[in-house]
Amino acid sequence: MVTIKDVAREAGVSVATVSRVLNNNGYVGVDTRKKVMEAMAVLEYSPNEVARSLYKRESKLIGLLLPDITNPFFPQLARGVEDELSKSGYRLLLGNSDENMDKELEYIQTFVQNHVVGLLTATNHVEDTLYDSLKLPIVMLDRAYGHYPSVYSDGREGGGLAAKTLIDKGAKRITLVKGPAHIRPAQDRFKGAMDVLSEADVDFAVLATTSYSFEEAKGFAEELFIKYPNTDGVIASNDIVGIAVIHQALKLGKVIPDDVQIIGYDDIPQCSLSYPTLSTIRQPAYEMGRQAARLLLSIIKGESECERTMQMPVEFIERNTTRKE
Amino acid sequence: MVTIKDVAREAGVSVATVSRVLNNNGYVGVDTRKKVMEAMAVLEYSPNEVARSLYKRESKLIGLLLPDITNPFFPQLARGVEDELSKSGYRLLLGNSDENMDKELEYIQTFVQNHVVGLLTATNHVEDTLYDSLKLPIVMLDRAYGHYPSVYSDGREGGGLAAKTLIDKGAKRITLVKGPAHIRPAQDRFKGAMDVLSEADVDFAVLATTSYSFEEAKGFAEELFIKYPNTDGVIASNDIVGIAVIHQALKLGKVIPDDVQIIGYDDIPQCSLSYPTLSTIRQPAYEMGRQAARLLLSIIKGESECERTMQMPVEFIERNTTRKE
Repeated sequence: MVTIKDVAREAGVSVATVSRVLNNNGYVGVDTRKKVMEAMAVLEYSPNEVARSLYKRESKLIGLLLPDITNPFFPQLARGVEDELSKSGYRLLLGNSDENMDKELEYIQTFVQNHVVGLLTATNHVEDTLYDSLKLPIVMLDRAYGHYPSVYSDGREGGGLAAKTLIDKGAKRITLVKGPAHIRPAQDRFKGAMDVLSEADVDFAVLATTSYSFEEAKGFAEELFIKYPNTDGVIASNDIVGIAVIHQALKLGKVIPDDVQIIGYDDIPQCSLSYPTLSTIRQPAYEMGRQAARLLLSIIKGESECERTMQMPVEFIERNTTRKE
Repeated sequence: MVTIKDVAREAGVSVATVSRVLNNNGYVGVDTRKKVMEAMAVLEYSPNEVARSLYKRESKLIGLLLPDITNPFFPQLARGVEDELSKSGYRLLLGNSDENMDKELEYIQTFVQNHVVGLLTATNHVEDTLYDSLKLPIVMLDRAYGHYPSVYSDGREGGGLAAKTLIDKGAKRITLVKGPAHIRPAQDRFKGAMDVLSEADVDFAVLATTSYSFEEAKGFAEELFIKYPNTDGVIASNDIVGIAVIHQALKLGKVIPDDVQIIGYDDIPQCSLSYPTLSTIRQPAYEMGRQAARLLLSIIKGESECERTMQMPVEFIERNTTRKE
């Protein structure tokens, strides 16, 4: 039977160091960590501690379910989660559900079988009967849902802010791009924009879309200017669609923002690389990830005094697809 | 002691169905899977099968290590891997190392402790002593390395193709953006471009950069036109940098491609949304992910006749940042 002492001897380090590597607490240098991992592998060490922690559900694993990692908003969230968790020695297992409920369930099962001690989810499909039955600390990320603790930004306010901004900047024939029906935050921002547009003295039209993907955004942008060639203000369902609308407007010879103003949603890094750069409603993705991780850890540690729901602020980021002044 | 039979009774399904859910083989409908998972959770079923599979290393988990999920190239790879694995009932654990060796080691440790049956890695830091010691089937993705099976595209050829394309299209004062030194594929494509430029009858300059991130790309693009204001052809280190170069060129009032041609690398989805759309060297990311997953599964299953290294083709994708004819 190989013991932790054997591993320490093989690696030429102290037992305490091996223990720190195993439990992922305290500082361990990169070279030392590597030596310990190699020693464990060489000796085929099957650690009792690991087994015990697995069965006592004392792993330091957290599961994070994302709906679509190809949307740049979500990798930003994930980095925030990861940075915060790693400060406390927790590790992240990432699952990408691809907006597919079957995959979502499979990942949850994988997480549970691997004894995660908490779950962060930003997906759209699973109802609370399943989440309730898991008896795991759960934090909803990027959306509020049921009675769960959650970290999200106010989509309703953000949608309203987008509409109000375009109206204030003189748009008179606004096109509102409605995001996919099954994505909850998309519906919140749609409703927020509708509230403002309905009250205002402007013409507006709604273009319904079914996806946020880069591949399909181009088609929506083409459709938009075919259906509403004279629109002078576009509220995009997110930045990806906003960037596609810039592309299509320029292709049609329109001058931005003189002929048409465009406003995105999210503030993904690409916004400042488009030309012209995309004005948008910013959600603080990285910070949302960090706060969700902190909230989950505080629940795991039983610190009940913590805030159970955090609504993060949205703000208008002025770039060059909206008029100045 | 709760058994699989109790779970089946609670869920109102057959034992075989519970077993299919547990082992993730055969078809299980979404509603059925949910019922079984809820029953397991309600009964606090601690499955012997799972425990056994964990210790016999017969989990159906595969680890995938990515260097940077905020670079859109890698989510495309990951989706290819995921789609292929899920066909065979395998599940993916994703780790994002953020180009940080410590994180990379931590993820490997997490994967090993969770008994992955194979590892796919697209990272840049770990040397083979560690990988060798793991005694796990490993496939390198997006790079060839040592004696490991690998799936990658030919960076040297791709870099050469980028340079040759710009020269053929009449560029005379080429700027070659050299990607980060620690990223192996970046160095391959740099060398490939250098081989061609050195032989050709053109002026050229090299701009060294330290990162592929969206945040820093803008600064590199500014630096490029300050140092080489008269360049008429830019070979970008990847598409992100290419899109930043488009932005900066337009900002400086240059006409693309008449004043300056730009060529990217990777063919991320954003290339067709920039304006003008970015000509680039395409790596078949999704297909690379699929092939790497297939190769890994064939190694896990002991099918030794399989191809051990796959070099995928690169190709020039003509869009609007290079001259036609």
